[in-house]
Amino acid sequence: MAGNVFGERIQITTFGESHGEAVGVIVDGVTPGVEIDEAYIQVQMDRRKPGQSTVTSPRKEYDKVNILSGLFEGKTTGTPLFIILFNKDMRPEDYDEIKHSFRPGHADFTYLKKYGLRDHRGSGRASGRETAARVAAGAVARKLLEQRGVSVIAYTTEIGGIQCRNYVEGSIEANPVRACDPEAAAKMIEKIESLASVGDSCGGIVECKLRGVNPGLGEPVFDKLDAEIAKAMLSIGAIKGIEFGAGFAAAKMLGSEHNDQMNADGFISNHSGGIIGGISTGADIVFRVAVKPASSISIPQHTVHVNGEEQVIVTKGRHDPCICPRIVPVVEAMACLVIEDHFKRQAAMLH
Amino acid sequence: MAGNVFGERIQITTFGESHGEAVGVIVDGVTPGVEIDEAYIQVQMDRRKPGQSTVTSPRKEYDKVNILSGLFEGKTTGTPLFIILFNKDMRPEDYDEIKHSFRPGHADFTYLKKYGLRDHRGSGRASGRETAARVAAGAVARKLLEQRGVSVIAYTTEIGGIQCRNYVEGSIEANPVRACDPEAAAKMIEKIESLASVGDSCGGIVECKLRGVNPGLGEPVFDKLDAEIAKAMLSIGAIKGIEFGAGFAAAKMLGSEHNDQMNADGFISNHSGGIIGGISTGADIVFRVAVKPASSISIPQHTVHVNGEEQVIVTKGRHDPCICPRIVPVVEAMACLVIEDHFKRQAAMLH
Amino acid sequence: MAGNVFGERIQITTFGESHGEAVGVIVDGVTPGVEIDEAYIQVQMDRRKPGQSTVTSPRKEYDKVNILSGLFEGKTTGTPLFIILFNKDMRPEDYDEIKHSFRPGHADFTYLKKYGLRDHRGSGRASGRETAARVAAGAVARKLLEQRGVSVIAYTTEIGGIQCRNYVEGSIEANPVRACDPEAAAKMIEKIESLASVGDSCGGIVECKLRGVNPGLGEPVFDKLDAEIAKAMLSIGAIKGIEFGAGFAAAKMLGSEHNDQMNADGFISNHSGGIIGGISTGADIVFRVAVKPASSISIPQHTVHVNGEEQVIVTKGRHDPCICPRIVPVVEAMACLVIEDHFKRQAAMLH
Amino acid sequence: MAGNVFGERIQITTFGESHGEAVGVIVDGVTPGVEIDEAYIQVQMDRRKPGQSTVTSPRKEYDKVNILSGLFEGKTTGTPLFIILFNKDMRPEDYDEIKHSFRPGHADFTYLKKYGLRDHRGSGRASGRETAARVAAGAVARKLLEQRGVSVIAYTTEIGGIQCRNYVEGSIEANPVRACDPEAAAKMIEKIESLASVGDSCGGIVECKLRGVNPGLGEPVFDKLDAEIAKAMLSIGAIKGIEFGAGFAAAKMLGSEHNDQMNADGFISNHSGGIIGGISTGADIVFRVAVKPASSISIPQHTVHVNGEEQVIVTKGRHDPCICPRIVPVVEAMACLVIEDHFKRQAAMLH
Repeated sequence: MAGNVFGERIQITTFGESHGEAVGVIVDGVTPGVEIDEAYIQVQMDRRKPGQSTVTSPRKEYDKVNILSGLFEGKTTGTPLFIILFNKDMRPEDYDEIKHSFRPGHADFTYLKKYGLRDHRGSGRASGRETAARVAAGAVARKLLEQRGVSVIAYTTEIGGIQCRNYVEGSIEANPVRACDPEAAAKMIEKIESLASVGDSCGGIVECKLRGVNPGLGEPVFDKLDAEIAKAMLSIGAIKGIEFGAGFAAAKMLGSEHNDQMNADGFISNHSGGIIGGISTGADIVFRVAVKPASSISIPQHTVHVNGEEQVIVTKGRHDPCICPRIVPVVEAMACLVIEDHFKRQAAMLH
Repeated sequence: MAGNVFGERIQITTFGESHGEAVGVIVDGVTPGVEIDEAYIQVQMDRRKPGQSTVTSPRKEYDKVNILSGLFEGKTTGTPLFIILFNKDMRPEDYDEIKHSFRPGHADFTYLKKYGLRDHRGSGRASGRETAARVAAGAVARKLLEQRGVSVIAYTTEIGGIQCRNYVEGSIEANPVRACDPEAAAKMIEKIESLASVGDSCGGIVECKLRGVNPGLGEPVFDKLDAEIAKAMLSIGAIKGIEFGAGFAAAKMLGSEHNDQMNADGFISNHSGGIIGGISTGADIVFRVAVKPASSISIPQHTVHVNGEEQVIVTKGRHDPCICPRIVPVVEAMACLVIEDHFKRQAAMLH
Repeated sequence: MAGNVFGERIQITTFGESHGEAVGVIVDGVTPGVEIDEAYIQVQMDRRKPGQSTVTSPRKEYDKVNILSGLFEGKTTGTPLFIILFNKDMRPEDYDEIKHSFRPGHADFTYLKKYGLRDHRGSGRASGRETAARVAAGAVARKLLEQRGVSVIAYTTEIGGIQCRNYVEGSIEANPVRACDPEAAAKMIEKIESLASVGDSCGGIVECKLRGVNPGLGEPVFDKLDAEIAKAMLSIGAIKGIEFGAGFAAAKMLGSEHNDQMNADGFISNHSGGIIGGISTGADIVFRVAVKPASSISIPQHTVHVNGEEQVIVTKGRHDPCICPRIVPVVEAMACLVIEDHFKRQAAMLH
Repeated sequence: MAGNVFGERIQITTFGESHGEAVGVIVDGVTPGVEIDEAYIQVQMDRRKPGQSTVTSPRKEYDKVNILSGLFEGKTTGTPLFIILFNKDMRPEDYDEIKHSFRPGHADFTYLKKYGLRDHRGSGRASGRETAARVAAGAVARKLLEQRGVSVIAYTTEIGGIQCRNYVEGSIEANPVRACDPEAAAKMIEKIESLASVGDSCGGIVECKLRGVNPGLGEPVFDKLDAEIAKAMLSIGAIKGIEFGAGFAAAKMLGSEHNDQMNADGFISNHSGGIIGGISTGADIVFRVAVKPASSISIPQHTVHVNGEEQVIVTKGRHDPCICPRIVPVVEAMACLVIEDHFKRQAAMLH
């Protein structure tokens, strides 16, 4: 496969460039008879869209959800759901200047090397715009997971070196950086605004927690639940690392510390992050991803022209100084897709 | 798929339990006409086998490579290579005691929940023994990569909190922990032996470097090169996290620091770890994985009987106090498989 | 996968119901840098559309091709081509009467049994309308095959018991039944019109010939070229059988008759239909498919209501009395997709 | 994938050449907790083995079933079943003479063109020996289907132009050609023996009937049940065509004849062969395959040396003069695999 298909039993195929006419997704394998509508999906789209606050890009992508197939009388039919999001407020001319240059941190150079040509407008397929299709598809999976009693929630735990110290229930969607600690959130916003004012950007960490996943999901050996989640997360452009449970800290732990011992109530600790041997334990599935600083900055940088000549470049356009707030719903969407897929794969094995 | 198949154009399917009769692998999609023999693969098997030193398990798995198909007159035929490793020195009776208990850190509980029954002898399919088949298959991929001028090398950078400070060329295979810094290696060995003497274990970090991968490999959007590597690595039982290039440190960097700027000679830095937008840049591909402390320790731990009763358990058997040294060839094997697969996928796209 | 994805290295995913808003397809894995436009694809769509003559349905589907992604400055970019065909001239009310009945020959009963509910309007996803997306995708594959010097041509050889006796070059598109023999074509038209006048329908046979496929394509063991073509063809709703080369006649032949002997110029005969051992021989690939009579007839038939009650039903709507003429471009489209896919798979193996 | 993997939720991967050391199969996705043993599989192997009568090859392949993984205390564990069949009674020297020649009807030429080299001993991977692995895997699927109440039975209906006129229950395994009509069987045997005595071979037709498949199996659009069965059957080397229900005869029928009308008891006829719109109707699934005459004949034939020089060749070795009797269990095996796979896929969709 050429890389635009994800999942096996709930399977999505996406298309679309940031400055083309539309992005969209075909969701195949949806359980029939489930009530879903455009409004339900729109809620998730609105969490991802730009222009939500001063800390996100002022572009207006206007991600209006259109479901063109797979629904009948308000219910899924079991045939492919097709969701299209027409692009608006495109300014391809913003990109004319960099048509023949490689923007540092962007996929300009690698796409040209891979394909021999590239659509330079707004990063084409490598744009964050591509994730809109993921969020739409993820909302469908979320609907199916709701019926199973599974909840999926992600939140920022660190931005620009500022870390959350508490997890305050209900605070996440109440602050524009989607941090789980309102105090930290205030400092993060300040930090982002200050960096934005000088044209720079910063990275952060997003954590995701899945609650209600029963034990037994995940396919050993190669399709372990954590392996599939890792692939899903690293397939998001800005993510450069992932860790489950204790994660990298496990490298410094002893076996006697890291092992999750059990008592009659279940696991006493959750250093494994809810997955052992690639299979869910029934405890919360917990992982964290490293989000790199946004590549588009307006500080002059060294690069080369496609002809090899050295240049100094300043990236224009309307960009996010920190990707964390808008990556939160994308992380959730991909997690929903992986988990729902594994519920279905488990059903196939047992039945 | 039920999880025992990996890859697309070079595709492996593995089988076998640690205390069954054999483990093995079918490698499909191998380029025809390539000279390879059992001795070449045996070299890699010997790097993974137990009993190499005082810091690894004294079990004798005797991983004698047998190629039963796909070779003719010393060359690959393009049909499936089948490699089988018969198990030896099995002591399933070592596991009788834990037949009805869940060993902390092991997949006993999750396998039972998934399948409704389990082969308790030596963790069955969840055993590290399963990785022998990966190393055999990885050696085939390595052979193909050699012909492309690609080298893949992994090494320990941290064990039990002790970190390598230098990268000393040629030192890795000369020390039993496969650390890249002989001085650190000495301390690591001491640490492992000291922990082993009290029945405990420790974790660490392994880094992997791929040299000679030309720019342009990787399939956006979902099959990004880093996404595929992440899946490959997290599919290895003991690995709990992965990061590329700057990785989690990127969360604390500014865009102006993290972006890899270019000059006429290419990329000036390599914070991206050789992959941008999911596609190789031509720079070294660099990633690190977090290895959890071995789960099998002989310190008493709390657990439950399958009937729910609380117990104290002591894991017997012959185990590795630190998995890093033996995971190094497994990490390399999986990396080889991913990269060779993507070379073939790129060929399919362009031709 | 849930059945709406086809192919491996050139891979299509389709969506859409006959009386929904649109049908369409994502084509992934397209070679980058190839010039293609909507007009090129439209040519094939127009061959499939209804209303071309008195022997096809008078519905106006108006299959206007819209490419919404994957093209840049007139060339493919290597990213997914998305092609959408908005539905027009829908009359869902034509189907109100059969909402709760099972039309004989149609998938009404089986869809209800599979999904527990169904979109009764015009057969939903089981409609022949679905093949529009295949023809659009097939045109993309055809473009790639043209560059390889491969031609794919299908034609009617039998309708309503009337068989073509000659193959007259250039005659196929000149008659509305796409028969390869103009004399037979005239009789076929007469037959169809006569059946249509009494509300009945008839079946036929379509042959397909692929010229210019070099020897060596096809993946033994399970993905043999003929196996893949067979799957592709039987996936077309009205097709009930396929045979390659001598086909069913081979059952009556001796080995000494059927074997294709060779001389210095190549194969002396082509009873194999251009495929031996699942791999192309370099001779023309020739196969025939059996097309069932159209299920929609206006003659009264026995059926049951969804509640189990017996009924007599008369299928209304605007239907094709014989599917052969319009299935010809669909057969070609699917053949193009299979062959192009195998060219790419062969490239992956060798490179 | 490179063609040695079949199925999705019950998935098999095979390996092995006819004159290598072994053939075998990994069966992944098997339902856990099912009682199965080598003896159960051996029954099917013995139906496929050569030397069963005067009408089959006198070679002794001795297909002794060895299950090396995936079983524990007599039950499947849900992890891969690995079955190996060591080759015996090989006489590769029989093939020395044709090392550099292309045997008519065999895949010698096409394999060389595909791979650039070939294992000439006994057709290597293109040998009928490869089907032993299919029969072993099919027996596993058959076990699972038995628990669902599904039976799969194939039988010869025509050999060398002699057709069965009756279906006599219980007669199939009682005659060496596995015909459903004992009278026809006697004539078929005579015919085969007479052809064998002059070194020639003949073809035939095998029919397969699946009973007890409930309505609703099959995945529209591309993975229709008949499409998947067609692929499975055409992947068997000697099969050149397939038809479902009325099949090619449907081409001569009217819609009013072919449509399967319904009454309160279900379908009145079964021209569709138990599949409509790619989904099972609940009626018997019935299909027929065309089996070509065996390619190996000892009558002199024209061919060329690999250097292009014209030759006359006489194929030596111990061959079947008619493949039908031994292809019957292979057809059943592949049918079992397809149906069981679709049961599991249906479970995934609904759950």
